[in-house]
Amino acid sequence: MRTIQSRAHPYTVEEFLTLDAAIESLGRLDQMHFLVDSVLLDRLGAARRQGLPESRIVSLEASEHAKSYGALERVFLDLLERNLKRSGTLVVIGGGVLQDAGCFIASVLSRGIRWVLIPTTLLAQADSCIGSKSSINIGSYKNQLGTFYPPHRVLLVPDVLRTLPYDELRSGLGEVIKLQVLSSEAGFEELMRDLVGFEAFADDRRESFLARWVRRSMDVKQPVIEADEFDRGQRLLLNYGHTFGHAYESVSDYGIPHGIAVILGMLTATALSAELGMVPVVHAERLFSLLRPWHEPYAERLASVGREQLLQALAKDKKNSATGLTCILTRGYGAMERMSLTPEQVAGLVWPTIRRLIDSGFSGGIMGTDSSAGLGKPTA
Amino acid sequence: MRTIQSRAHPYTVEEFLTLDAAIESLGRLDQMHFLVDSVLLDRLGAARRQGLPESRIVSLEASEHAKSYGALERVFLDLLERNLKRSGTLVVIGGGVLQDAGCFIASVLSRGIRWVLIPTTLLAQADSCIGSKSSINIGSYKNQLGTFYPPHRVLLVPDVLRTLPYDELRSGLGEVIKLQVLSSEAGFEELMRDLVGFEAFADDRRESFLARWVRRSMDVKQPVIEADEFDRGQRLLLNYGHTFGHAYESVSDYGIPHGIAVILGMLTATALSAELGMVPVVHAERLFSLLRPWHEPYAERLASVGREQLLQALAKDKKNSATGLTCILTRGYGAMERMSLTPEQVAGLVWPTIRRLIDSGFSGGIMGTDSSAGLGKPTA
Repeated sequence: MRTIQSRAHPYTVEEFLTLDAAIESLGRLDQMHFLVDSVLLDRLGAARRQGLPESRIVSLEASEHAKSYGALERVFLDLLERNLKRSGTLVVIGGGVLQDAGCFIASVLSRGIRWVLIPTTLLAQADSCIGSKSSINIGSYKNQLGTFYPPHRVLLVPDVLRTLPYDELRSGLGEVIKLQVLSSEAGFEELMRDLVGFEAFADDRRESFLARWVRRSMDVKQPVIEADEFDRGQRLLLNYGHTFGHAYESVSDYGIPHGIAVILGMLTATALSAELGMVPVVHAERLFSLLRPWHEPYAERLASVGREQLLQALAKDKKNSATGLTCILTRGYGAMERMSLTPEQVAGLVWPTIRRLIDSGFSGGIMGTDSSAGLGKPTA
Repeated sequence: MRTIQSRAHPYTVEEFLTLDAAIESLGRLDQMHFLVDSVLLDRLGAARRQGLPESRIVSLEASEHAKSYGALERVFLDLLERNLKRSGTLVVIGGGVLQDAGCFIASVLSRGIRWVLIPTTLLAQADSCIGSKSSINIGSYKNQLGTFYPPHRVLLVPDVLRTLPYDELRSGLGEVIKLQVLSSEAGFEELMRDLVGFEAFADDRRESFLARWVRRSMDVKQPVIEADEFDRGQRLLLNYGHTFGHAYESVSDYGIPHGIAVILGMLTATALSAELGMVPVVHAERLFSLLRPWHEPYAERLASVGREQLLQALAKDKKNSATGLTCILTRGYGAMERMSLTPEQVAGLVWPTIRRLIDSGFSGGIMGTDSSAGLGKPTA
């Protein structure tokens, strides 16, 4: 059992062999209400659902729309009508969308009620389930609303990852890989070795691989979120790959899964860092070659994107202020830096680099023919 | 200048002679957006508004509807369209509704942005402006949503209270009186002496009276909210008078101003405490007689209320769990206690007492003819 410190309250991360065992650990269910991914709820079937009190289950679709401010009004009202009060507990079972919705609801209902999270995707287990954040959409603005409010308990069940589609696992692996790139060369190389042959792993081997790298991901993330829960300093580096990744998700109309977009975003940041002389080209080329199996063929979805469309998507990111572009670049494994690029650098370096990466399928030939001389240094 | 500690961030309370001086103290306005009470905004007139950048003012009506979850979606979008980002500041100018809406928005936008509060009612200056809370309505549920998120600065301008209607001042005085009842007999008696002739005070005297008792109110509230920001223990006692007060507001269709409903609620709690032998009848009678000028003639609005209607309104209060009624009773000045009354006590004691108080216009004859023997003691 892991205990994580937070300004709101400390919380535990516990592992269980089965979902039933996790639910069993909740104890008496009479003050508990359940917010459950609708697909998962169907899949659980009557037998598995027996453990949950039917009258206190609210089902939620795992879509971007479902975690919008407007759509959540119905969920709040559903829970209030079922008499969820200040002394109650909300148990959230699902992936990132369910976590975002559940965290926001729990943090705002009666100014904060107790909640328990059972993450059911690799992305949620390895990354988002710790760190307190919720992200809510409003109108056409994605993730612009939210709160910092960790669950009181996180219950990990590696077993539930067993049935996930391969591409959803790959999406989760995107964040797992990112955390090791942020950590150290040794961690990253170890993960890459463990990943060899992943697609063909037998069920048991896959499950123990995932349980192990969920733990290793938390080992990297925990000290960062404990030191900077509110995203003012070092925690911002966890967004490595996200400025570009979010833009890729957006311009592909969310046709690129989040974690895979993060891989493409990391590669973009690496290429830019190489262009700016911050990191050796050989470092960048090795990363492009190792990560290719973990994003292909999604870069194709970007083939038709235009300059204006991409720059607008970049400007929408909430981390970007009115002028220029703030992003995280790299000087190597475990050596990321938050940088401000000028509008001139965005036009003269960022866009041409991205265009070249898209044309090559993010597979190589990363350096431009022009040198980057004259573009100036980014300011830290 | 007062500095208040909070889990989120420490914040200051500063006094200014005029609204202009307060706005001047904000410094550069180019990253600031203003959320302003619509009536106040009209009253300010073109000359006074010159100081505020027109394109960054969002006007909000001070109504219960305006601080509902659904209605706030438009305000969020307005502010996002005006490009309020994570590095921006929201300046909120108005009374309780504006504070609730502004606090909620600031706490949820980009997971918390900087905000400054300029409270313009006595109720907001003396009571709600410190303590971090927001309360938001949803559907037919009042104040069931919210957050704990104090402003970064509170700017007090006693001068703006000068033009408030008398009944709005009385409403604010309700919370001022409550805080002294919670504090000590000496504080309460001093306030009662200062209040003699209040209605006829000249402007200057009224203003200095208000500035003084705003400060004295904060002296009582500050240590309580600092010790128990999240309402788990002693802070709950600040709700003295509110369980019944909220019900009176609700059954009168908000025809009774909040602070006046709190006075009626305190008197109800005092009468119940006397019935239960917790406080001498003479204490209760003195309070009923002293507070009469501060609620009359609003008790009339309750004349037609029925038993079921009132008990339902009491049950809706978010502090009440599924069974019985939790309320704050008193053993004298500065000696409040949180009590749980059984459903039998609610039926046999609470309702008959309230009926008697309503029939007497909350003016006396507070003891029932039956003794309360056999109803049992409340459980602490």
